[in-house]
Parts: sequence; C-alpha cells; structure tokens
Amino acid sequence: MHGKSKKPAAGAVRNPDRTRGRILEAAIAEFAAKGQAGARVDAIARRAGTNKRMLYHYFGDKEGLFRAVLRWKILERRALFGGAPGEPTENLPFRFEMMCRDPEWIRLLGWEALSGKVAEEKLRRQGLRRALKRLKNLQAEGQLTSDYDRRHLLLAKISLTMFPAAFPNLVRLITGTTVRDPKFQAEYRDFLKQFGEVFRPVHSGKKTHKGRA
Amino acid sequence: MHGKSKKPAAGAVRNPDRTRGRILEAAIAEFAAKGQAGARVDAIARRAGTNKRMLYHYFGDKEGLFRAVLRWKILERRALFGGAPGEPTENLPFRFEMMCRDPEWIRLLGWEALSGKVAEEKLRRQGLRRALKRLKNLQAEGQLTSDYDRRHLLLAKISLTMFPAAFPNLVRLITGTTVRDPKFQAEYRDFLKQFGEVFRPVHSGKKTHKGRA
Repeated sequence: MHGKSKKPAAGAVRNPDRTRGRILEAAIAEFAAKGQAGARVDAIARRAGTNKRMLYHYFGDKEGLFRAVLRWKILERRALFGGAPGEPTENLPFRFEMMCRDPEWIRLLGWEALSGKVAEEKLRRQGLRRALKRLKNLQAEGQLTSDYDRRHLLLAKISLTMFPAAFPNLVRLITGTTVRDPKFQAEYRDFLKQFGEVFRPVHSGKKTHKGRA
Repeated sequence: MHGKSKKPAAGAVRNPDRTRGRILEAAIAEFAAKGQAGARVDAIARRAGTNKRMLYHYFGDKEGLFRAVLRWKILERRALFGGAPGEPTENLPFRFEMMCRDPEWIRLLGWEALSGKVAEEKLRRQGLRRALKRLKNLQAEGQLTSDYDRRHLLLAKISLTMFPAAFPNLVRLITGTTVRDPKFQAEYRDFLKQFGEVFRPVHSGKKTHKGRA
C-alpha cells in the first residue's frame, strides 16, 4: 500500500512509529483547535507531513484517529496523575498545574462537553473509578475529609483546578490577567494550597474545622 | 421595508416587540446549540417564524444579533443574582441552581471559551466588578472570609457552581447520573451548602477554621 503512494513522507517508510506519532501530534492540535466535527483530516495529514492515505492506513478514519488521540492523552494523564501528592493542600496545586500545562486536553474536553458525546467511555470510567479509590485510601489514611461523598469531593477538586484553564476568558475578565500568565498561575497555586485545607479531615489534630457537626 | 416582504409573520407587523423577542429566543437556542460561528441566520429566522430580512431589520447582522442575545442574558442573570443570598453556605447552592437552570447560557460561555473571543466585554467587566464589590461588603460584614484574594474567591465560587453544568459528561462519568437529574442536583446542593463553610470567616464565633495561620 505504501508503494502506491506517489509522495510518501521521507520518514514514513523508514520509521512507521515516528509517522504514527507525528500524525497523533498533528491530530491533537487540529482536534483541540476545531473540535471533532470541525477537524479536517487533510489538514492533519498536511500538518504531520504525510498524506491522507497514510493516515487512513494507520487509523482507519477520522473517528478512529480521534479515539486514538483520546486514548493516548488519557494514558499520558493517568501516568502524570499517578505521581500526584495525596495531601489536599499539595494535590490541588498539582492538579491545577497539570491543567494549565495541557490546554489542548482542556479544549478537547470543552468540545466534547458541547457535543454531548463521550468517546472511550470505558477507559475513562476506569480512570475515574481509580481516582475515587485513591480518595477512599486517603480517607482511610486520615489525609482526606470523610465528611463528604467522594464523588462530590472529586468533582469539587476537578472544578477548582480545571475551571480557570477551561474558561480563560472568565479568568481574564475577573483578574485582568490571562491564565497563561505565570504570575496568575503562581498566585492561584498558592490560593489552592491554602484553600485545600477544606479537604482535610475535621479532627486531624494539626488542623481542624470546628463546628461542622 | 416590511411592506416588501411577501410573507411577513402574522404577529410581526402587529407587534414588533413580540417579533423581536421571538427572534432573540430563537437566536439563543441556535447560538447555544451551534456556537456563534456555526449558527445559521436563516435557521434562527425560521425558528422565530419570521424571515431573514426582518431579522436584519432588527439586529443588523449575525454579530449584532449575537451581541443582543448576550446583553439580554447578562442583564437577565444580573437581575437573578441581585437576589442571591450573601451567606456562603446559601450562596453556593443558589449559584449552582442558577447554573443548572440555564444550560443555554452555560453553552454560550463554553463556545466563547473555545473561540477565545469575548463579546460585550465592558458590560461583563462591570458585572464582575459589582460581584467583587459585593464580596468586599460581605467581608466587611463578617460573612465572608478575608483570608483570600477576592478575585480568587469569586473564581472558586464560580468554578464549584458552574463546572457540573459546563462539563455534564464528567458528572455522568464520575457519578453515573446526569447533571439534569433532580437527585444529583439536590445532593450537590447539599454538598455545596456544607462545603460553603470554607468561605466563612475564620473567627466568626459560630463556626471556625482553626490552624490556618
């Protein structure tokens, strides 16, 4: 099949894995910019320095490519979050930093929210179940409050740390600065570090939240 | 101009305000569904039971219509939030309810975040300045913690209360239920009511957060 291609990208024939990787990188950029519906396969192929036939050879069709992008990002983020600190006052700033570092992932989630569709649902449910399991362990270890439903705690943590990257316009309207501004990021990290106290257990000795009975 | 229209909508000639209102309603639905770029003016006119010429007569062009929609929604929401309780444990559930009640507004903000553009910036800055002023008053009255930057407090409040409506897919993946489910809404309202404690002043007598020095 490759032989028939009139202009195969130079690296494509010699190094299929590298071509595949380049297509994935290009696809993330295109899907993040325009969403799954708006993304153009030929634009992705062009960006990757290859052609549509090569892209179809590796990923089947646009939807197959989109799913491959999601799987890649999900596994990448799972690896990153595997090293997340458990202590809430450290966990929140860490999460916020991960969100700020990957605007393309945040945009993919934004497009998805508007589309109403969920791709790779099984893999993602699995990841979120693991996250809930980690919260359960943290509660058992006395590092996380048991006052609330773990699903709500997880939702609150994701909300607080992902929202600024998901709604950069609102950050700018409220603070006058952009979410990419290192000064804003440092200040908000500090805020989350202090604010993270609310996720600590009530009777942890060192820190207590009284009167929540 | 109206006279030339071959098929004016019956109500249009008799009641221009009603036609204008119908166009705005139709425009919100279309802009929320497809975003500013994807929305079709003829689809809006059809949905409103009028025609494109009438629509242009009232709003100039698609962008003029979009700005009119935003202004309408902003003033509507400003009126709603004018009645918001100040007490954080009441304010958070109230905000959450307002977000859940208006998925079209949340979708407009979602499209806007992805577009990177901000319309009606002056009006919105003004609204957010007022919100920050209210927080300042609440701090002075001892109803809101002074431990944090007010801009961060506002961002945290909006994050916690808007996120579920903005990312309904994540709510479903985490909780197994939809954000529209009255049971989820009631549970999350209760969560926010309790969680809102963190926004109370440290030394408020009734409730205290010790050890945050």
